[in-house]
Amino acid sequence: MIHRLTVQTDGPGMYEFTPELAAIVADTGVDEGLCTVFVRHTSASLVIQENADPSARHDLERWLERLVPEGDPDFTHTQEGPDDMPSHIRSALTATSLSIPILDGGLTLGTWQGVYLWEHRRRRHARRLVVHLT
Amino acid sequence: MIHRLTVQTDGPGMYEFTPELAAIVADTGVDEGLCTVFVRHTSASLVIQENADPSARHDLERWLERLVPEGDPDFTHTQEGPDDMPSHIRSALTATSLSIPILDGGLTLGTWQGVYLWEHRRRRHARRLVVHLT
Amino acid sequence: MIHRLTVQTDGPGMYEFTPELAAIVADTGVDEGLCTVFVRHTSASLVIQENADPSARHDLERWLERLVPEGDPDFTHTQEGPDDMPSHIRSALTATSLSIPILDGGLTLGTWQGVYLWEHRRRRHARRLVVHLT
Repeated sequence: MIHRLTVQTDGPGMYEFTPELAAIVADTGVDEGLCTVFVRHTSASLVIQENADPSARHDLERWLERLVPEGDPDFTHTQEGPDDMPSHIRSALTATSLSIPILDGGLTLGTWQGVYLWEHRRRRHARRLVVHLT
Repeated sequence: MIHRLTVQTDGPGMYEFTPELAAIVADTGVDEGLCTVFVRHTSASLVIQENADPSARHDLERWLERLVPEGDPDFTHTQEGPDDMPSHIRSALTATSLSIPILDGGLTLGTWQGVYLWEHRRRRHARRLVVHLT
Repeated sequence: MIHRLTVQTDGPGMYEFTPELAAIVADTGVDEGLCTVFVRHTSASLVIQENADPSARHDLERWLERLVPEGDPDFTHTQEGPDDMPSHIRSALTATSLSIPILDGGLTLGTWQGVYLWEHRRRRHARRLVVHLT
């Protein structure tokens, strides 16, 4: 019912884990149900986006970096580095949990949909996810 | 447990499907549970917003179009048209899945809440949703 | 399975209700499952963010206020006051529902994660949440 998943990151960007998630669903043998993914961090988030053309992911990453830049003079939460506060804001604007229905033993993702962990911090991290299946 | 729903769209904007969703819940006879809606696309999204005064919806649509305009010189993912990349970004900023508890056989939406498919592309689309009920 | 929770607010800002949510989970005695929180409003929303250093919350609040300011000349939905339309937009950019897996009888929140009701309106409100547990 509950599974743990870790995504290793090495700098800001979207890291796809659709195959790992699909494998968890396949292993449990759930035919019909719901798969919920939860990220246990406040400076990394979740997003489902196009996984066909890497330029879509690239533009999305750049756009959010530009919307929430480092070095904002209004930031007071700066002790943990210039990339910390933008990471919290970027996380709040995207998802902390995502739910995907399961049908015929697989995730009902659309043709072009991939599931991503969005790392917002510069340093390497082992990001911990919790996956719940019904 | 799993139901499919299609929303026909004809240009950018929010399309309410609260009655269709409520009908699915009513038909299944679930008294208490959870209704999860998932959109199988990366250029259309989900949002729960005010369905009383259309001006709220109008202003929300305009605001997001202005935040993520077409023709951004930084966009590289432009092959599928000028409305494609803004659609991905607008989708990432709103929801891909939404969960609404069910009580006394109905959705526990607030008085002014409507459930919307938010189309971000110009062309007509048949947007596919998956609804999971427990 | 379904519980109601009310968060009293007194002006814009993030109001933590992690202890109240944890108490509901503890009271039901669910060992392993999923906790879904739903907010029944369109001018208040949900967010999971850092609850260690208050400066992170402060900066996040200020940033979103600046991104979606009152008095936007394009707003037409202004009858209910200058803080109404920004509240709808800020809600649409954050979450209306959140799902957190339960393991060993408790929420699987990360070390620094707190669950917040984000009030976007100036007036005092009693914000109603619905909590679903499986």
